[in-house]
Amino acid sequence: MSDIKTLAMECRLAAQTLAQLDGAAKQALLAAMAQALEDDADDILAANARDLDAAREKGVGSAMLDRLALDPKRLRGVADALREVAALPDPVGQVTRDDLRPNGIRVQKVRVPLGVIAMIYEARPNVTADAAALCIKAGNGVILRGGSEAIHSNTAIARALRRALEAHGVPAAALTLVEDLRRETMLELLQLNEIIDLAIPRGGEGLIRFVAEHARVPVIKHYKGVCHLFVDDSADPELALRLLIDGKVSRPAACNSLETLLVHEAVAADFLPRAAQALRERGVELRGDEASRRIVPDMAPATDADFAAEYLDLVIAVRVVPDLGAAIAHIRHYGSDHTEVIATGNDAHAERFVQALRSAVVMVNASSRFSDGGELGLGAEIGISTTRLHAYGPMGLEALTVERFVVRGEGQTRNLP
Amino acid sequence: MSDIKTLAMECRLAAQTLAQLDGAAKQALLAAMAQALEDDADDILAANARDLDAAREKGVGSAMLDRLALDPKRLRGVADALREVAALPDPVGQVTRDDLRPNGIRVQKVRVPLGVIAMIYEARPNVTADAAALCIKAGNGVILRGGSEAIHSNTAIARALRRALEAHGVPAAALTLVEDLRRETMLELLQLNEIIDLAIPRGGEGLIRFVAEHARVPVIKHYKGVCHLFVDDSADPELALRLLIDGKVSRPAACNSLETLLVHEAVAADFLPRAAQALRERGVELRGDEASRRIVPDMAPATDADFAAEYLDLVIAVRVVPDLGAAIAHIRHYGSDHTEVIATGNDAHAERFVQALRSAVVMVNASSRFSDGGELGLGAEIGISTTRLHAYGPMGLEALTVERFVVRGEGQTRNLP
Repeated sequence: MSDIKTLAMECRLAAQTLAQLDGAAKQALLAAMAQALEDDADDILAANARDLDAAREKGVGSAMLDRLALDPKRLRGVADALREVAALPDPVGQVTRDDLRPNGIRVQKVRVPLGVIAMIYEARPNVTADAAALCIKAGNGVILRGGSEAIHSNTAIARALRRALEAHGVPAAALTLVEDLRRETMLELLQLNEIIDLAIPRGGEGLIRFVAEHARVPVIKHYKGVCHLFVDDSADPELALRLLIDGKVSRPAACNSLETLLVHEAVAADFLPRAAQALRERGVELRGDEASRRIVPDMAPATDADFAAEYLDLVIAVRVVPDLGAAIAHIRHYGSDHTEVIATGNDAHAERFVQALRSAVVMVNASSRFSDGGELGLGAEIGISTTRLHAYGPMGLEALTVERFVVRGEGQTRNLP
Repeated sequence: MSDIKTLAMECRLAAQTLAQLDGAAKQALLAAMAQALEDDADDILAANARDLDAAREKGVGSAMLDRLALDPKRLRGVADALREVAALPDPVGQVTRDDLRPNGIRVQKVRVPLGVIAMIYEARPNVTADAAALCIKAGNGVILRGGSEAIHSNTAIARALRRALEAHGVPAAALTLVEDLRRETMLELLQLNEIIDLAIPRGGEGLIRFVAEHARVPVIKHYKGVCHLFVDDSADPELALRLLIDGKVSRPAACNSLETLLVHEAVAADFLPRAAQALRERGVELRGDEASRRIVPDMAPATDADFAAEYLDLVIAVRVVPDLGAAIAHIRHYGSDHTEVIATGNDAHAERFVQALRSAVVMVNASSRFSDGGELGLGAEIGISTTRLHAYGPMGLEALTVERFVVRGEGQTRNLP
């Protein structure tokens, strides 16, 4: 058996122990994992310094260095995030259906862990702790395959977390960090469909496409967010402006940031100049279609590629549309099914917008920034699924479980006389 | 664009119309589909006769011929099944979470259709109508790729159903039967991950493995059922015997039939001779391990392969185990995660059995035959998932939908001052 298959098998076996833990035991375990991170702070920060040195030597850009960097405050933040996960309600054992059938059998659907989850991710070392905590809270074994830039940090973090697992009677293999980062080893991991129940890739589009293309295990993709704001003719312009600025300016690199502004032609002449001014004051570049450039002439022209772009930057594409139907058609054509927002004062328009779009999250008069597990009340999120199966949109703990049937009877049979 | 990709694109486009229909419209549509089958009965039965002739010429076995054959009564049964689906509650639009957040936004999770579902199946022509009805009731487009043996029957059935769709304003492409049955065309279909949201293969293990191996679209597998009955030392022997006979004798070819009997050693000497006699009276062959053959010496010896076998026939493997833990270990090792049954009078043992097993359906003192969508209260089933994601166990209409987020606010923002 190959090394990676052996590791995965050991993780699966260890996950059986995790799956049997009750909520209190998992809460104590996660608190201990948080404590272990703080106990090992010196080691983890030293390992992180090695990663940062290597990255600087390779000439890595400053945004990437920032994502990679840990300091005492950030590490405390990671530990505190684990304590928050510890305190969340346990999804395992939740009864989602309870039905007494006419023949007297009692049919329940009950949440159980998925089994073994493989996380494939890039630079941020905090994902190592966050993802592990969520998978373990939901009773799953977790195989972590991070990026090479963070290998020393990830190894030090995993070492601390595994010590906490062992101290709580769970084999350390329940949290397995893949240290062999060769591409062929990842490919082999993605073929282990008898062992791994789900792969979650998080990172750039290239990574996600690679995983989706080569995996034989089920994959939940976290693709790009080409999020839209449609300003309806009945919208309160002040409200629309606030949604626009909140959705574009703060953290433009997040996947729930707005990438395209669609404006109803009846309000465009009033709204667009105000929007352009407010955005430009905040450093945002606008790229518009012909109709919007007739209103704000000094906008750069938007191409077809602009309307499909996930800028993740202080840039926004702008289009004037004749009506709600045209806005819906635009989003269906160019959108990525992530998050869409309508600003409207018309309930019928709001309902039509919600019904006509198949996106994971649809907002009526609320900011796209709420497309986030914590904001939606899920407690924490392991990612935002753009795969239209199992989970769609922000994924919390429930999305790391599956419902199965438990039936209790007194000897009922079906076909006996 | 290839022919199959064009067909799939047209199905996806047509599915948008289906997704917008309300419950009453879909109910009327499904009733019309049932009626169309009865209106076209002569055509469908003539087409079926052609399939049967061709199958007989090819020397197809009688079991297969029986699965393929339609007659007026069976066709009425298919139409009636569609009427039952018509009457089921509409899963689309169901609100599964409704949460007012502290900032005043209202967060709902709402069921929406998956999108486009590809059914890949073998001989039975009734699947063409059943699967189409369930997919359409849940608002999905459906691409049907049946077996070559049933191609004339399937074509005639699809023609009738598509006429009903068009009469109700839904493009016929929403129900697309693939008439090009070349393997390379199926392979191409399974690569269309931008168009098809889910593939469900139903049939022999070979077909399912082929689909799972080659698909880039998500697949929910319906693998084999190696179902177990464990007779605990505290079991009522009469009750256990009834579960055994119900689970083995009637319809042995169904995936919820028992394949292995595990008996606690404390009751084996009493239970096994009675079980052997009752099963043999009903034509069942027993294959036992050493310990069981010491009690019932004229059993054939069971090999390791017997304990992993899905016989789908009047054969059962038998093993005596020292305790509940050994039964659980056996099922974990040999089982297929489909359906397991415990006969017990001990509540603690029942709970331990339920908790320790990860199978899709676990029964306490109830027959494995209830592992069926109708019996579990799902109304109808499109299959029994052994994939531990999205749906696990019998899949009803809800499993053909996904939950997405709808958020309503009054202009709430997240990061604005």
